[in-house]
Amino acid sequence: MRIIIATIFPNFVRVVKEYGVIAQAVEEGKIEIEIMNLRDFAHDRHRTVDDYPYGGGPGMVMKPEPFFELHDHCKQQFGDLYTILTSPQGITLNNKLAMELSKKKNLLIFCGRYEGIDERVKSLVDLEISIGDYVLSGGELAAMVICDAVSRFVPGVVEDESVKRDSFYNDLLDHPQYTRPVEYRGLRVPEVLLSGNHEMVELWRTAESLKLTALRRPDLFLARQFSVEEKKALIHLIQEL
Amino acid sequence: MRIIIATIFPNFVRVVKEYGVIAQAVEEGKIEIEIMNLRDFAHDRHRTVDDYPYGGGPGMVMKPEPFFELHDHCKQQFGDLYTILTSPQGITLNNKLAMELSKKKNLLIFCGRYEGIDERVKSLVDLEISIGDYVLSGGELAAMVICDAVSRFVPGVVEDESVKRDSFYNDLLDHPQYTRPVEYRGLRVPEVLLSGNHEMVELWRTAESLKLTALRRPDLFLARQFSVEEKKALIHLIQEL
Repeated sequence: MRIIIATIFPNFVRVVKEYGVIAQAVEEGKIEIEIMNLRDFAHDRHRTVDDYPYGGGPGMVMKPEPFFELHDHCKQQFGDLYTILTSPQGITLNNKLAMELSKKKNLLIFCGRYEGIDERVKSLVDLEISIGDYVLSGGELAAMVICDAVSRFVPGVVEDESVKRDSFYNDLLDHPQYTRPVEYRGLRVPEVLLSGNHEMVELWRTAESLKLTALRRPDLFLARQFSVEEKKALIHLIQEL
Repeated sequence: MRIIIATIFPNFVRVVKEYGVIAQAVEEGKIEIEIMNLRDFAHDRHRTVDDYPYGGGPGMVMKPEPFFELHDHCKQQFGDLYTILTSPQGITLNNKLAMELSKKKNLLIFCGRYEGIDERVKSLVDLEISIGDYVLSGGELAAMVICDAVSRFVPGVVEDESVKRDSFYNDLLDHPQYTRPVEYRGLRVPEVLLSGNHEMVELWRTAESLKLTALRRPDLFLARQFSVEEKKALIHLIQEL
């Protein structure tokens, strides 16, 4: 798949494809990430992308033309587009939505800045997405978050086994992890992880996942259909009471 | 205030303080953002920050020592720290939490990577924060989001008027914005915004905010105590039915 991010800060956004598993996937051709500069589609001498809001008020509003022309350009170059606008008014990103978006051929993400974006740009947009109930200085970080979360679901980007163990994939939070040394500043690794007993390790990990989910995310716990392994882990937890 | 981000990818995270209002606030000394490299606190020849998980399983786990030593170093250099770990198991960031965090003197943010982070690191952590119900390749983007959202509440970073009009500040979504041209590709700016009648503009904007909130975020709408202006806008909407 291809993800295109339209921004006035291409050098800000670019880092998303230069580090970690995403960089590796780009290098291996498993995903294409294009960063496009909205200013390349502004035609005045100063390549202006913003202007005053009609009706008054503080701040500036992003002009419609650069978005429309960039959209035209991408459609011509790449074909069908699924266009996203990062916006606090959008529906909230979650892992399920990220997975659905990973099936699109071309995902175009518009980053807003300033006080907002001319409302008419929304006629190009298939979906407005928010990454959470907080305000950011611009859509760039949101676009980078969408790009990362979506990329992880593209086949081959992350090892399957890793994706399946991730928090939220199974709607359970992750169990604790430990590495060397066995003891550090008086804090020890739980004995079960040193036992070499794989069945006990799995039981402990499932129990810890369930415990963390019950305490931190009762909503996920309540919505869950438990597997036999999870029920065994629940018995194990109850026995410890 | 000071925000310190501890990461293995300092050049990734650095961009958060190089663009837009955050860059300006840093330049004006309204906020300090320090990016620290966890590898500077690893002492072997390869500056190793990860190791295999006890109990087996895929992927690598971040070692405890670099986090502990970086924490010691910051405490010595800056004094009291409020330490955050970015984690899918954390409580979800929202604007209210961002505002509370903006009152801390020193906010230290630990970025996790790989399969996770040695559980003992959590003994240093005051709060685990998630930015949403999706999985990212690492804590870097989450730390940048927290840094941006928190910085906006530091006095002087963003104009007060802008913060107050932001979505979520008042728990209402933002009204639409328009700028020139009046007509573009057959799409026109609503007449009321061209009227010059400030009272009508404000009424329209409040009504549009309420409409968008009712349709997209009924949870916010239901939780709201309406002001007189908002009730007037609701009458205006009902008259249009």
